[in-house]
Amino acid sequence: MIEPFDDSYFMKKAMQEAEAAFDSGEIPVGAVVVVDNRIIARAHNLTETLNDVTAHAEMQAITAAANFLGGKYLTGCTLYVTLEPCQMCAGALYWSQISKIVYGATDENRGFKTMRTKLHPKTEVVSGVMEQEASSLMKRFFIEKRNLN
Amino acid sequence: MIEPFDDSYFMKKAMQEAEAAFDSGEIPVGAVVVVDNRIIARAHNLTETLNDVTAHAEMQAITAAANFLGGKYLTGCTLYVTLEPCQMCAGALYWSQISKIVYGATDENRGFKTMRTKLHPKTEVVSGVMEQEASSLMKRFFIEKRNLN
Repeated sequence: MIEPFDDSYFMKKAMQEAEAAFDSGEIPVGAVVVVDNRIIARAHNLTETLNDVTAHAEMQAITAAANFLGGKYLTGCTLYVTLEPCQMCAGALYWSQISKIVYGATDENRGFKTMRTKLHPKTEVVSGVMEQEASSLMKRFFIEKRNLN
Repeated sequence: MIEPFDDSYFMKKAMQEAEAAFDSGEIPVGAVVVVDNRIIARAHNLTETLNDVTAHAEMQAITAAANFLGGKYLTGCTLYVTLEPCQMCAGALYWSQISKIVYGATDENRGFKTMRTKLHPKTEVVSGVMEQEASSLMKRFFIEKRNLN
């Protein structure tokens, strides 16, 4: 059976958000939150635009999803995010009790795995979905940024 | 020489925020951000009111302080918070490059020390300021909550 709504399908939607971030000069990270194959939140990094270190894609996606659901817990939800979450975002995901996190590229330096940030025991993690695409977009961003400076 | 603006002075202001949280049924945590003895942000926990796990006092204080300063980094700022920050808030403080964090009560279970969340290397930490008062308010909150349920 063909499954039209697989992890790649939703990661592509997160990648579209990352590209929107790229286009506005933000570090290109995008995220969507999904429940029952339905996207209930879309967000991308806005730290430069908002002058706010807390405006990571995941943080906004968590807030938007909770707002949509009318409750603060994201049980039953999956977050798709193009880059491995940092300490802050993993800490927020811990509080949200989200059921699943799917991320693309690994962040060797500041990702929650290196930092050993604790997720909720009920949270499942899948990594490496569309890793190449997410990683390439990040590299392209930093190369262009260097060339402009 | 008498120093009117010491850590206790600003922690009292954070405690007033914690009391405001208590009065609105929120876990009583309050925070202020200070630059050159001037309070530039005040906030208290709003997770219940906003249905948002990211609405911790510290997160709002970071956003408000950056907004006041017109830049996302909080170099030169001190955060006073009545409870030891969690992973999420410590992760946000890491990104903010804040110069100093002063907290009151210890959070043995979910505080950043137990969780080993990494702060920015330039961030100084002071703990235990008005610890008893902050801790008592927390205990009172949970006792009242239990009695109501």
